[in-house]
Amino acid sequence: MEKIRAGIYGYGNIGKSAEKAIMKSEDISLVAVFTRRDPEKIVTFSGAEAVSADRVYEYKDKIDVMLACGGSATDLPVQVPELVRSFNTVDTFDTHAKIPEYMETVGNIAERSKKTAVISAGWDPGLFSMMRSLFGSVLPDGTDNTFWGPGVSQGHSDAVRRIEGVADGIQYTVPSENILNEIRNGSVCKYTAGQKHRRVCYIVPEENADREKISETIKKMPDYFADYDTEVNFITEHELKRDHHAMPHGGHVFRNGITCNDEKHVMEFFIKLDSNPGFTASVMVAYARAAFRLYKEKNYGAITVLDIPLSYLSSKNRKQLIKELL
Amino acid sequence: MEKIRAGIYGYGNIGKSAEKAIMKSEDISLVAVFTRRDPEKIVTFSGAEAVSADRVYEYKDKIDVMLACGGSATDLPVQVPELVRSFNTVDTFDTHAKIPEYMETVGNIAERSKKTAVISAGWDPGLFSMMRSLFGSVLPDGTDNTFWGPGVSQGHSDAVRRIEGVADGIQYTVPSENILNEIRNGSVCKYTAGQKHRRVCYIVPEENADREKISETIKKMPDYFADYDTEVNFITEHELKRDHHAMPHGGHVFRNGITCNDEKHVMEFFIKLDSNPGFTASVMVAYARAAFRLYKEKNYGAITVLDIPLSYLSSKNRKQLIKELL
Repeated sequence: MEKIRAGIYGYGNIGKSAEKAIMKSEDISLVAVFTRRDPEKIVTFSGAEAVSADRVYEYKDKIDVMLACGGSATDLPVQVPELVRSFNTVDTFDTHAKIPEYMETVGNIAERSKKTAVISAGWDPGLFSMMRSLFGSVLPDGTDNTFWGPGVSQGHSDAVRRIEGVADGIQYTVPSENILNEIRNGSVCKYTAGQKHRRVCYIVPEENADREKISETIKKMPDYFADYDTEVNFITEHELKRDHHAMPHGGHVFRNGITCNDEKHVMEFFIKLDSNPGFTASVMVAYARAAFRLYKEKNYGAITVLDIPLSYLSSKNRKQLIKELL
Repeated sequence: MEKIRAGIYGYGNIGKSAEKAIMKSEDISLVAVFTRRDPEKIVTFSGAEAVSADRVYEYKDKIDVMLACGGSATDLPVQVPELVRSFNTVDTFDTHAKIPEYMETVGNIAERSKKTAVISAGWDPGLFSMMRSLFGSVLPDGTDNTFWGPGVSQGHSDAVRRIEGVADGIQYTVPSENILNEIRNGSVCKYTAGQKHRRVCYIVPEENADREKISETIKKMPDYFADYDTEVNFITEHELKRDHHAMPHGGHVFRNGITCNDEKHVMEFFIKLDSNPGFTASVMVAYARAAFRLYKEKNYGAITVLDIPLSYLSSKNRKQLIKELL
């Protein structure tokens, strides 16, 4: 079997995790990682060569699919439209509100260059979107509820770190067990984000900082914390480094719906992740496989997780999948 | 918007539920139900006409997709190969071991007649198969565990009813909470069916029957009960009718896997159903929509849930789906 030749563009948390996910895939080989840093200073886990991002176009004919591993805020909107002129791509663009615009930009270029770009293929957007779409189709008369966490919210962590007297800090979003149980027991209410989640902060205060005031400032912060049950804990810098370096995450997608005779049904998708980038990269690698298959079928343009048959994600062939898993 | 014109072939539990699921779908209308019984004696919920199964071919040009609602044991293997000569079809054929053979038979005829047959589109096979495939692709280094229930097993209920001294009875398969929790906490063991499930029987004994002996016979029955933690309860005929007429079911599909650095991840799909036929029919109706779309794209032959993009199941158009749900 000829392996799919992958490249990784951007060698941060996601890029490194993508490399390791490729090492777990029998049918994909890693050709090179592309970095904006000095490639001489990078040693890859797999032994794949590290190459300066400037030289990526020299690899046009050596790479079947490029995993774009930059950030959604500033990297991907610039990098993917460039990369897709020469490569099939997969990314995890996750700014929900901007997806249609991003899709159009990337899609127009991909169609012209006859390449395939799978966009927003992480877990949310990504697997969670798939579940929302599937569940809603199966139970059209029903209610969606998505929960995120327990996991770090980067935006909320940034917000607490900007408060006067805060040296460092981190914020976890935690699903409310009570509401989870109400939904599992059949509730068809649509809950607000504030009902569904608690917010738990670990704050390293500056010396002589007013803890009372920090705590109050956090709890009253509009949009970020005011509508939530918020817990503030003070810890030392040492404890922050020791206990909060991992990047766990997870969440739940529910749909509770009603079919005939008022029969109620609960559908839930749940993930619990030791590492957000580890899992995200693993999803991305499965969609890299799909991207290349779609390309071989001349299915060019921007393609989403909602457009791709599940069999395209597997390293097994269709016949084997149907026999073993259907 | 022109509605998809559906027919229902077989008007038992699934057929009746399918009718009600169609009534909940804005974009599908029901043309007729086809029955082997006397159609004069049938009043449909929707007001659709009831027609003798013999006359189904008169509806060749009036129906876009036929929901084949017969049983897997003897109905579908005979009916679907016949129906697909003239109709696009969707079915819930659920004899796992015979799916490849069934698929080939139906597929060959469908390709010749230029029709689309979506096969085995219930929840297992069906949604559970999709999750097994998706989860395994995302976490290639991992373990699957599927649980069924709490719900009635027809095979096991039949088995207890054949025991001497048993007037009537029913058997529920119940997932083991302990093992569910072990898996949710990250266990990557592959558990046996007997570890994963308890079996709970409700038995109506004949007058003067030896209850001790019935209980022992059940618990020692090879294949069916011997390898399980089995509970036997004796109840009256009245209690059986009062408390055990519903058809709840459900289950869990898990994949626990490892990505880089021994990071563990848990993926779970969970459903809890008030009514097995109600939910099954609701899945089937979503795939009826997909069957007709595939047909319009000239995608003929036997097609499984693993081959179909999720967007095809939705009554929303792709652009709207991407904007709202991705």
